[in-house]
Amino acid sequence: METVEQLRGKIRTGDWTQPTTGQASGYTQANLVILPKKYAYDFLLFCIRNPKTCPLIEVTDTGSPVPKKSAPTADLRTDLPKYRIYRNGELIEEVTDVTEYWQDDLVSFLIGCSFTFEKPLLENGIPIRYIEEGRNVSMYKTNIPCESAGVFQGPMVVSMRPMKPKDAIRAVQITSRFPSVHGAPVHIGDPAQIGITDMNKPDFGDPVTIEDGEVPVFWGCGVTPQATVMASKPEFVITHAPGHMFITDIKEEEHAVI
Amino acid sequence: METVEQLRGKIRTGDWTQPTTGQASGYTQANLVILPKKYAYDFLLFCIRNPKTCPLIEVTDTGSPVPKKSAPTADLRTDLPKYRIYRNGELIEEVTDVTEYWQDDLVSFLIGCSFTFEKPLLENGIPIRYIEEGRNVSMYKTNIPCESAGVFQGPMVVSMRPMKPKDAIRAVQITSRFPSVHGAPVHIGDPAQIGITDMNKPDFGDPVTIEDGEVPVFWGCGVTPQATVMASKPEFVITHAPGHMFITDIKEEEHAVI
Repeated sequence: METVEQLRGKIRTGDWTQPTTGQASGYTQANLVILPKKYAYDFLLFCIRNPKTCPLIEVTDTGSPVPKKSAPTADLRTDLPKYRIYRNGELIEEVTDVTEYWQDDLVSFLIGCSFTFEKPLLENGIPIRYIEEGRNVSMYKTNIPCESAGVFQGPMVVSMRPMKPKDAIRAVQITSRFPSVHGAPVHIGDPAQIGITDMNKPDFGDPVTIEDGEVPVFWGCGVTPQATVMASKPEFVITHAPGHMFITDIKEEEHAVI
Repeated sequence: METVEQLRGKIRTGDWTQPTTGQASGYTQANLVILPKKYAYDFLLFCIRNPKTCPLIEVTDTGSPVPKKSAPTADLRTDLPKYRIYRNGELIEEVTDVTEYWQDDLVSFLIGCSFTFEKPLLENGIPIRYIEEGRNVSMYKTNIPCESAGVFQGPMVVSMRPMKPKDAIRAVQITSRFPSVHGAPVHIGDPAQIGITDMNKPDFGDPVTIEDGEVPVFWGCGVTPQATVMASKPEFVITHAPGHMFITDIKEEEHAVI
């Protein structure tokens, strides 16, 4: 089997530019947000104050593209299959390498992703509808405010997975073991209680079928930090392109607290 | 029984200036570090990178003495029984109120404290030697380097509690539930493996008896962030005086992940 380093090598040379879903099974994938240092304190504080939506895996030293702890041989300028470049809140380009955009004042934030808890859900026999239906997970803006920090504020975005009640209970147990990748759900049941009016119209991703007798289960979603950053329109931001995540050297099970 | 707010009221008016050990049973007590904003990013990053020793409970908005999340009616300038004021790394004064030292650029960090996991240990029938012997917990500098962040670097400081092996196993289970207050031990057994040469000479606190058949169990210690800050000799720092902690509104059990 291909190692994580081999896969990152193929991504670095441009031989892999596809989404990373299903790749490097067992290894943690991460969302990426790169900001100039002047925004880094506020954003770090925002992540600390909102750990359910913005669970930090690593923050690099200013100017360094190397995630020393989670992948010391990697380079964040080249080792993601696709990036998005934003200026003043507007998407200006999608690229497969951000070396030419690099600045000495950039700080990179790697943020946990719910891929990490989906594998143990599946291993526990809990079906995941959007995977079964070959769609993207349903994501919704809620009326739950994030704790603000400096220039960063906004509503919590959640991902939703419909389940049988007994599976929902087991899913609470399983995901509670992984606080560093969103942890336990933030809500179960009535979508209206968290400000979601139409389950068929997610704000991000695709709608999925909710069968009779199933209950929607909502988790804090890694789209929240990106949506929050964009809303503040900083003059320069680099992120991963959706689905094109950074693959770390950290085994998913290493995130479990017990 | 006295409420937490009533106790903080007595502390605020100067009617309570003693250590908080054993007070407000069931409520989380916290270490306090107050730094000028120019150090706040490095220190926040240091805490994030060293969660076992520096578990963050809350970081206030710059200039605000109010911990909005953990005790919204409190004032960190008055609501601790005793503070220490440091300039350029030197202790210049111990006071019961820091209002006259307050500056608009100060950021307050509340950091978890092992008091929070000792109650569930005792409730599980695990004796805690230093409490039995009426001493302070034994704390040691180790040869385990903290992950550095900007100007902050230094070795991990650990607290040690000797236990029977079966109690040590149970203690791992219990403290794993509390990752936001140091979590699982960092070491069990041979002190030499983490650079401790003489168990009878702790670097902080008091030595305690280790009985035949007992194993020393080591946890990351909240003295680490303070020792690290002092080593970098910032021009101004306020901390709690040892044992004179901040009492939050958060129930200890609320820190448990499962």
